[in-house]
Amino acid sequence: MHTLLILSRHADQYRRLIEDACLPQLEIVSATSSDDVTASAAAVCDVVLGEPTLICKILIRLPALRWVQATWAGVEPLLDPSLRRDYVLTNARGVFGGLMSEYVFAYLLAHERLIFEKQASQDGGRWDPTPPGTLRGKQIGLLGVGSIGAALARTARHFGMRVKGYTRASESCADVHAYFHGDDRAAFAADLDYLVSVVPNTARTERLVDAPLLAALPPRAVFINPGRGSVVDEAALADALRSGRLAGAVLDVFQQEPLPSDHVLWRTPRVRITSHTAALSAPGDIAPVFVENYQRWIAGGPLRHRVDFERGY
Amino acid sequence: MHTLLILSRHADQYRRLIEDACLPQLEIVSATSSDDVTASAAAVCDVVLGEPTLICKILIRLPALRWVQATWAGVEPLLDPSLRRDYVLTNARGVFGGLMSEYVFAYLLAHERLIFEKQASQDGGRWDPTPPGTLRGKQIGLLGVGSIGAALARTARHFGMRVKGYTRASESCADVHAYFHGDDRAAFAADLDYLVSVVPNTARTERLVDAPLLAALPPRAVFINPGRGSVVDEAALADALRSGRLAGAVLDVFQQEPLPSDHVLWRTPRVRITSHTAALSAPGDIAPVFVENYQRWIAGGPLRHRVDFERGY
Repeated sequence: MHTLLILSRHADQYRRLIEDACLPQLEIVSATSSDDVTASAAAVCDVVLGEPTLICKILIRLPALRWVQATWAGVEPLLDPSLRRDYVLTNARGVFGGLMSEYVFAYLLAHERLIFEKQASQDGGRWDPTPPGTLRGKQIGLLGVGSIGAALARTARHFGMRVKGYTRASESCADVHAYFHGDDRAAFAADLDYLVSVVPNTARTERLVDAPLLAALPPRAVFINPGRGSVVDEAALADALRSGRLAGAVLDVFQQEPLPSDHVLWRTPRVRITSHTAALSAPGDIAPVFVENYQRWIAGGPLRHRVDFERGY
Repeated sequence: MHTLLILSRHADQYRRLIEDACLPQLEIVSATSSDDVTASAAAVCDVVLGEPTLICKILIRLPALRWVQATWAGVEPLLDPSLRRDYVLTNARGVFGGLMSEYVFAYLLAHERLIFEKQASQDGGRWDPTPPGTLRGKQIGLLGVGSIGAALARTARHFGMRVKGYTRASESCADVHAYFHGDDRAAFAADLDYLVSVVPNTARTERLVDAPLLAALPPRAVFINPGRGSVVDEAALADALRSGRLAGAVLDVFQQEPLPSDHVLWRTPRVRITSHTAALSAPGDIAPVFVENYQRWIAGGPLRHRVDFERGY
């Protein structure tokens, strides 16, 4: 018999979805806060499903723990070196590509189709025949070509864009026209119309989007960050936008969230701020990831989306 | 020898593109206004390429005319019953699908992703974690499934939407899940999240989007019209929006354009007005349509995109 602890703000939804799957040999305990987990439940629980920010607080109370399935892609709270690592950690992957694609292309299309400008004309009662732009033939650069990058590449191809990918290793995505690595950042950035960061938060990606990379972009480029805030040198980004060396930035994530009210990015021109909503974990998407992994687990097979504690994803 | 008259606001661009194609047996005359066409050029010209609004003014002066290639999809100005019809008329088709798709999905994604609402929060300095919606699983209804409708259906499928098509005849588009015809308008409209009109302007499509059709839509639906203004009963649309029986309308075309400054739609809530810019004819797209048709013409083959004067498209 296994005991699953669901620890999530959406614990009720997850409980219903997982009960509906009728998984064998599984008792379910659920809570929306670690304080609500009883000592007897904590003593027997060997599997946890939930949000990393909640789970990190209870790790120390789980003597039987063997596996944690995070409901998020980012598991930073569980990677703190002071925390135990004697369990298997899996994250949510492969489910955010569609939402990320909707987010990124909502803003790419808004930029090309001048939808804020058309709205301003309408607000002024003006018929505005200014010709809009088009995505066709434009160039998009993807920092990171994992499952999310691959989904963005597929949508970019659908709209007739050219796709450049900057990646550590994998070159398996057929929708990417050209790959770049390591020190190739300037060649990667040259001639991009759009730069999108979807790399995970690791030591290697910290401030990958820095002053030199931003300077290598053409002034017409727009930077979109639905990935991780740690990837961006925010002061360098604000400088590039203020001086007109960059046409715009669409930012969902930040070094500190919520973005502090006195932060320079609130007052930087050509920035759009979307408050970490690009791809929210929906229980209806995440529960099946857990269900599949549980079936693998009881069958003794390898789990999908296992996180390497050292690599950070 | 043939003589082509290019009559277009973009006459210089068209001339350059067509000269570059080195078409055989072809002299080219070009003008941006019918007043600038000399009597001697008009006397010999047998082919015209250009905008219907300009061409209709010179038809009477072209004794040798055999073929007109319009640079637009809509050829209404040439269909006036008082005008001659003793020539072959072809229009621009098959080139607007990509642009129309960018237009429609720019506004669908803007609606789902709350991009105007997020901007308002940012303007107020507010971190706004309101969860956005998604296109996945939503239902789109296409009034008209020609080449533009097919392009929209393909993009809708890319984003995981369900597609309903209302059409006069053709059921050839594999991206449409369910087809509707004739009196089926209420069944077609039921349960749509988005209704998009891309039917041509004909006697059959006049005010196809009327009070009963709008009443059959759920109150969450948004209507998008990048097609023809004649298709919409504008008073009924304004009523539906004002009373909250419709969540929004994105309108590119109108009964009268530019939309008169005292028109009720300027002051109707939940309307976005884009001033007939959804899919502008780009010489780079249209010139190849002419070039291909010219090659067919001198080879004695049938022309593509021939307009039936009676049917209207």
